[in-house]
Amino acid sequence: MSGIFGKLFAISTWGESHGKAIGAVVDGCPAGLRLSENDIQPFLDRRRPGQSTLTTQRKESDTVKILSGVFEGKTTGTPISLIVENTEYRSGDYEQIKDWYRPGHADEVYDSKYGFRDYRGGGRSSARETIARVAAGSIARKFLNEKCNTEFNAWVSYPTSENMQSAIETAREKGDSIGGIVSLQIKNPPKNLGEPVFDRTEALLAMAMMSIPAAKGFEIGEGFEAAKMFGSEHNKLGENHAGGTYGGITSGEDIFCRIAFKPTPSISQVQKAKNKNGEIGEISIKGRHDPCIGIRAVPVVEAAAALSFMDLILLK
Amino acid sequence: MSGIFGKLFAISTWGESHGKAIGAVVDGCPAGLRLSENDIQPFLDRRRPGQSTLTTQRKESDTVKILSGVFEGKTTGTPISLIVENTEYRSGDYEQIKDWYRPGHADEVYDSKYGFRDYRGGGRSSARETIARVAAGSIARKFLNEKCNTEFNAWVSYPTSENMQSAIETAREKGDSIGGIVSLQIKNPPKNLGEPVFDRTEALLAMAMMSIPAAKGFEIGEGFEAAKMFGSEHNKLGENHAGGTYGGITSGEDIFCRIAFKPTPSISQVQKAKNKNGEIGEISIKGRHDPCIGIRAVPVVEAAAALSFMDLILLK
Amino acid sequence: MSGIFGKLFAISTWGESHGKAIGAVVDGCPAGLRLSENDIQPFLDRRRPGQSTLTTQRKESDTVKILSGVFEGKTTGTPISLIVENTEYRSGDYEQIKDWYRPGHADEVYDSKYGFRDYRGGGRSSARETIARVAAGSIARKFLNEKCNTEFNAWVSYPTSENMQSAIETAREKGDSIGGIVSLQIKNPPKNLGEPVFDRTEALLAMAMMSIPAAKGFEIGEGFEAAKMFGSEHNKLGENHAGGTYGGITSGEDIFCRIAFKPTPSISQVQKAKNKNGEIGEISIKGRHDPCIGIRAVPVVEAAAALSFMDLILLK
Amino acid sequence: MSGIFGKLFAISTWGESHGKAIGAVVDGCPAGLRLSENDIQPFLDRRRPGQSTLTTQRKESDTVKILSGVFEGKTTGTPISLIVENTEYRSGDYEQIKDWYRPGHADEVYDSKYGFRDYRGGGRSSARETIARVAAGSIARKFLNEKCNTEFNAWVSYPTSENMQSAIETAREKGDSIGGIVSLQIKNPPKNLGEPVFDRTEALLAMAMMSIPAAKGFEIGEGFEAAKMFGSEHNKLGENHAGGTYGGITSGEDIFCRIAFKPTPSISQVQKAKNKNGEIGEISIKGRHDPCIGIRAVPVVEAAAALSFMDLILLK
Repeated sequence: MSGIFGKLFAISTWGESHGKAIGAVVDGCPAGLRLSENDIQPFLDRRRPGQSTLTTQRKESDTVKILSGVFEGKTTGTPISLIVENTEYRSGDYEQIKDWYRPGHADEVYDSKYGFRDYRGGGRSSARETIARVAAGSIARKFLNEKCNTEFNAWVSYPTSENMQSAIETAREKGDSIGGIVSLQIKNPPKNLGEPVFDRTEALLAMAMMSIPAAKGFEIGEGFEAAKMFGSEHNKLGENHAGGTYGGITSGEDIFCRIAFKPTPSISQVQKAKNKNGEIGEISIKGRHDPCIGIRAVPVVEAAAALSFMDLILLK
Repeated sequence: MSGIFGKLFAISTWGESHGKAIGAVVDGCPAGLRLSENDIQPFLDRRRPGQSTLTTQRKESDTVKILSGVFEGKTTGTPISLIVENTEYRSGDYEQIKDWYRPGHADEVYDSKYGFRDYRGGGRSSARETIARVAAGSIARKFLNEKCNTEFNAWVSYPTSENMQSAIETAREKGDSIGGIVSLQIKNPPKNLGEPVFDRTEALLAMAMMSIPAAKGFEIGEGFEAAKMFGSEHNKLGENHAGGTYGGITSGEDIFCRIAFKPTPSISQVQKAKNKNGEIGEISIKGRHDPCIGIRAVPVVEAAAALSFMDLILLK
Repeated sequence: MSGIFGKLFAISTWGESHGKAIGAVVDGCPAGLRLSENDIQPFLDRRRPGQSTLTTQRKESDTVKILSGVFEGKTTGTPISLIVENTEYRSGDYEQIKDWYRPGHADEVYDSKYGFRDYRGGGRSSARETIARVAAGSIARKFLNEKCNTEFNAWVSYPTSENMQSAIETAREKGDSIGGIVSLQIKNPPKNLGEPVFDRTEALLAMAMMSIPAAKGFEIGEGFEAAKMFGSEHNKLGENHAGGTYGGITSGEDIFCRIAFKPTPSISQVQKAKNKNGEIGEISIKGRHDPCIGIRAVPVVEAAAALSFMDLILLK
Repeated sequence: MSGIFGKLFAISTWGESHGKAIGAVVDGCPAGLRLSENDIQPFLDRRRPGQSTLTTQRKESDTVKILSGVFEGKTTGTPISLIVENTEYRSGDYEQIKDWYRPGHADEVYDSKYGFRDYRGGGRSSARETIARVAAGSIARKFLNEKCNTEFNAWVSYPTSENMQSAIETAREKGDSIGGIVSLQIKNPPKNLGEPVFDRTEALLAMAMMSIPAAKGFEIGEGFEAAKMFGSEHNKLGENHAGGTYGGITSGEDIFCRIAFKPTPSISQVQKAKNKNGEIGEISIKGRHDPCIGIRAVPVVEAAAALSFMDLILLK
């Protein structure tokens, strides 16, 4: 089971939802980047649960420490080891559902594939694993911002922001959850990134996005709308319908993507579930869960995009 | 510029649209698979242009030869070298537009990135490069079909088939083109493929699909529709809203994906274009082009999915 | 600068000689292996300095902690994060030589390549980095021992053991150092490992060995002696002159290798050195250094071989 | 079974000793290198058999063709496909030994590993496979020579040249073979190649050399002699005992290596052999074989070193 992402800027992530800590080794970061924990912590804070009534009430400080790779305030080019301790893990919450596969979760396939199941919140399948991407991604973002003036901005675009709060609250009241769409703008991307055949910018971005837990769709530029357009419309100079890449290569225009997330599978509403013997029963998932994954996915989307870009820029 | 796709089942593709030949080396194919040119040719024939009035009129026989890796009718586990000669390349068609960057094409970014431009039909950026994927993918399909009974079926689902013919003909008459959506069903996928963090089934599929020329979107299961659903709906046992994967791992249920393609950028209608000096002019692209990429993308989508699955199954 | 070794069983190592800690993330370890710190610590203890008068007097406890990847006493298939804190780092020892490139060390090339120099003991170039390989390698050794009954045994074979102690003591008295040869026997290797063209067993072993600090030569079977033999001698059935591999593939016979190490470059004897301006001066390197690298390289050689074998066995 | 070597400059090799052709796809060659078949053919001619009484009498023209990646006389950055047809393959020669495993060859392990045996000269295990490395390596050599003025010069250093001819002739008369040592000098290597931990210059060179058929040992600089030296000797400024690398990084000084080759395993002298049932019999291997592999290995060593250097320079 691999936790490695990237080739030249490779992150090796580790840690279970209910283990001692979570972390990442960032391999291939160029030397000379000014870096401290203060450059990483704000991104973890944005991702952190328990900040508003719209997200899960699990409280973790998620404090990052840098263990290597920085000397006299600057990266040295050597691997940067990042660690975040898990301070609050109430395994007890999961005891009651350890005999049932949670619907919409990886519990059943995980058990089938690996022959065991870490019933404490999904182990590596937990969204808590995204801490590693956000922490490592914040280094990528700093590098790209300082060297190329590139920015990664994401936001929840569905449900529409005006009624998002009420939609989420309604779902929460019913013990239910809703899906969401995250839009991503990459401002001032370096031009000439990506290659014309396999390592296309959009292919690497798609892979990064579709490896975020609960992601079900990815589109760039006009995306699925492009299917309904005429060539004469889509081609128009200066209108950037392609979303910033041609034949896999960045033009330097801003890049626009959208990522679809399914509704959080953990809901407290009573629902049908299977167990190891294939029997059907009913369960209600307690614990502290986000009614809308999309909200907390925002910094993860930004981080994943930045990580993709590091390989694109180093392979250039 | 890399033409390599895959890790354990790796294809190394080569050849330009207007060069001598196009081919692929298939590295990592297991020994013992019965294989001859007859197993590959039908897939190339499906992809081949000039077969109906709906596709480009360029006529190529696209005949494949196996140069290595097969002994006494079976694969030996050694690299399989496949070659398809280019028999009809009228470079003359491109002379008139060699000073202009074709809008919607990679011409401009390619020139910017590599410092030169193979004006003869896009070089490696040409859709003709997909011959290599279809040929290599047909070996993957045969292996997966024989060992796992897995099938890859794709079709154009937009524009809707009833009026597809007329829509395409209208576009062609106007010297224009239209986009399309290709749906893919993977029947009887092996279960337990994919990993929970980065090498998720949907991430590898997305990367494969988004590296097909003109692809602008990918979704699996309910895809973008999932964003509008409630957890209680999406989770329902037996309804396969996820599209066959949970937490990146295949459940053995059929997999459903959709891929959006933009309209063919090559149109004969007069359109504005830029040249190397940034001047704007008007061009009309002659030559033989598909009014709807989606149609000929069908076997490419199937092949690309099968190639992804080989790595998933060998990494299992 | 990459600290990653391996493809399917990949270790991502991190940490500087004089930083807070040193560690490795072990990615790809199969699930179900019984594992605790007690399985790793003895190998670190063998590698640890300060144990006899023959090795450096730097005293570190080198205590390993497992932070992830083990649940209820067994590996889960998820990444295993290992950490060893640095408890004793006297940076002061290095202050006096920070203006001179130590002869035989990487100081000068490192400065030239990276544009800076971690003068505190070489940073990542320090032999202290081998802690990560020994710790990660001990997991590989346990797996290979339990599944395949394979053992990795190395020893210093030059200088000859009878006079090794006196040779080393003489060198130390003169403030000098000596080289050494480490012999490695791999008992009961699985058969059929390795591939006939590039990923040959001996090629992967050679790469692993030649990436150990101070290694200058590698041979397998008769090695350099084979150059003087006749085919009729070397071929003889049952005599294993090849050292356990044919055409890159293991036969199941024991594997024999030898690795040459140069003398420790850090010596207290006065020697000529260069500085950044190319001036020649004289320096004496204080600090606590091994008079013979070979001795402490023994567990590193064993670990590196075991790491290579994990990829060979997982790629099989 | 992988035929791929390298990461950024990756060659994908294919073809069996007795198949239709042998070739390589060179992926990642920078654009703008002037290249034609004339730049490659002389290296194949040097490797080609049948040129003197000291090498095998098999006669092949080994004529290379470039099928892609070159436009108007220059590389375009796209994959370069190279092909060499096999014109003379007398399978008949092997019929008589198809029931016996040739001693010292990979026949037995190959059969055990892959479950079949290409008795026609070893299939991919044949030294004929090195054509692909020599052809691809010649492109690497041209690039390195033009951009960095780097040269790769190898020669047989054992048996000593004065009596080499008579030693080889004696061996041939007795139907026997002898081993050899190939020395390699890399003149004017770029400085700052290689990395301090795993991707050391000497580790990548060792892997490349130990993947040449029949290689049994590798050393750099003083190599095994370094084990007998004192630090005060080995360190001496300006004497380059290290052989051009420190801590894995090139200093810009010339690099010196030596590679040991075992005697050709194919000998016509009667020798004991095993068959599939484990029975011992006697065989005499007819056919056309080199009495000393070392001689024809010379251009292979040079090519393999150049291929390693391409990755080192592109990863820099």
